[in-house]
Amino acid sequence: MPFVTITVLEGKGKDYIKSVSQGINEAVIETMDFPLDDLYQVVHEVSQDCLQYQDRTEDRVMMHLVMRSGRSNKSKQAFYKRAVEKLSKNPGIKPNNVFITITENHDVDFSFSDGIAKFVV
Amino acid sequence: MPFVTITVLEGKGKDYIKSVSQGINEAVIETMDFPLDDLYQVVHEVSQDCLQYQDRTEDRVMMHLVMRSGRSNKSKQAFYKRAVEKLSKNPGIKPNNVFITITENHDVDFSFSDGIAKFVV
Amino acid sequence: MPFVTITVLEGKGKDYIKSVSQGINEAVIETMDFPLDDLYQVVHEVSQDCLQYQDRTEDRVMMHLVMRSGRSNKSKQAFYKRAVEKLSKNPGIKPNNVFITITENHDVDFSFSDGIAKFVV
Repeated sequence: MPFVTITVLEGKGKDYIKSVSQGINEAVIETMDFPLDDLYQVVHEVSQDCLQYQDRTEDRVMMHLVMRSGRSNKSKQAFYKRAVEKLSKNPGIKPNNVFITITENHDVDFSFSDGIAKFVV
Repeated sequence: MPFVTITVLEGKGKDYIKSVSQGINEAVIETMDFPLDDLYQVVHEVSQDCLQYQDRTEDRVMMHLVMRSGRSNKSKQAFYKRAVEKLSKNPGIKPNNVFITITENHDVDFSFSDGIAKFVV
Repeated sequence: MPFVTITVLEGKGKDYIKSVSQGINEAVIETMDFPLDDLYQVVHEVSQDCLQYQDRTEDRVMMHLVMRSGRSNKSKQAFYKRAVEKLSKNPGIKPNNVFITITENHDVDFSFSDGIAKFVV
């Protein structure tokens, strides 16, 4: 379920984007009890000037997840840890350079297909 | 009021973007009791690799609405239904390929112009 | 802390983006009690057709902040006012053409580095 918006530096190429996308998706599924086919992501590519993360100039990624309330602090913390591990291994983004924030909503606030709010049907 | 962030595949052209933008805006106004001049949207165009919607490869759109709390489940559900109907007719995106999520905030959380939070003035 | 997503018109150039980014960041720090090194922003550049702000055609900016709950109405309102003042001075965006919305989350919902949710540690 989580709708994950990810922003990376432009010019990194398809393999880089695939690694980031897959690493984050695996972390979501492995740590926050989502089904195996859960994948809802937008990846944005922006210039150095458009990705302002304190004074960082190295490779970096910033992401925002929107998901239903209900996940425990523990599982969110496990997600953060797993996500930075994955991204550190591949494509090699340092854990210090990964920013994550989550906002929560409710059952009625998701329509995955066909205009149906499946969690309240 | 809703601030609607819409992501579509790149290379579709101006008419396509206009149809998506207008269809979603009409659905917002018709189903969730917003004024006729309500229009606050950002449309992002991204590559196939950057719009990950499970295993879908066909044309698809993902959107996120931010709006004040208060709309009923029924009106949100009417919005989902109407939005996919509009997008299905024009520009022809299948209902199965439309993702929608909503997050809610409060009166003080909107400033539409001149730096004023008009819902709390 | 706030994660600020800013959308501007494309083709404005680096100085314009720098002014927008810095102006908003200064307003955040000056009005909402954030530390001096607080800077977490993504700037998106989109075409005229992709930045729909009622019937406005002049230069304009739309932004969305995600931050922990806790800031008072008064400080949010001070932020709105300061932000439009800054953008009006530099790069010269009219106060009427600045859209701001805020959504709030909780202590556990931020990981700024190293996969740690530092507000709950």
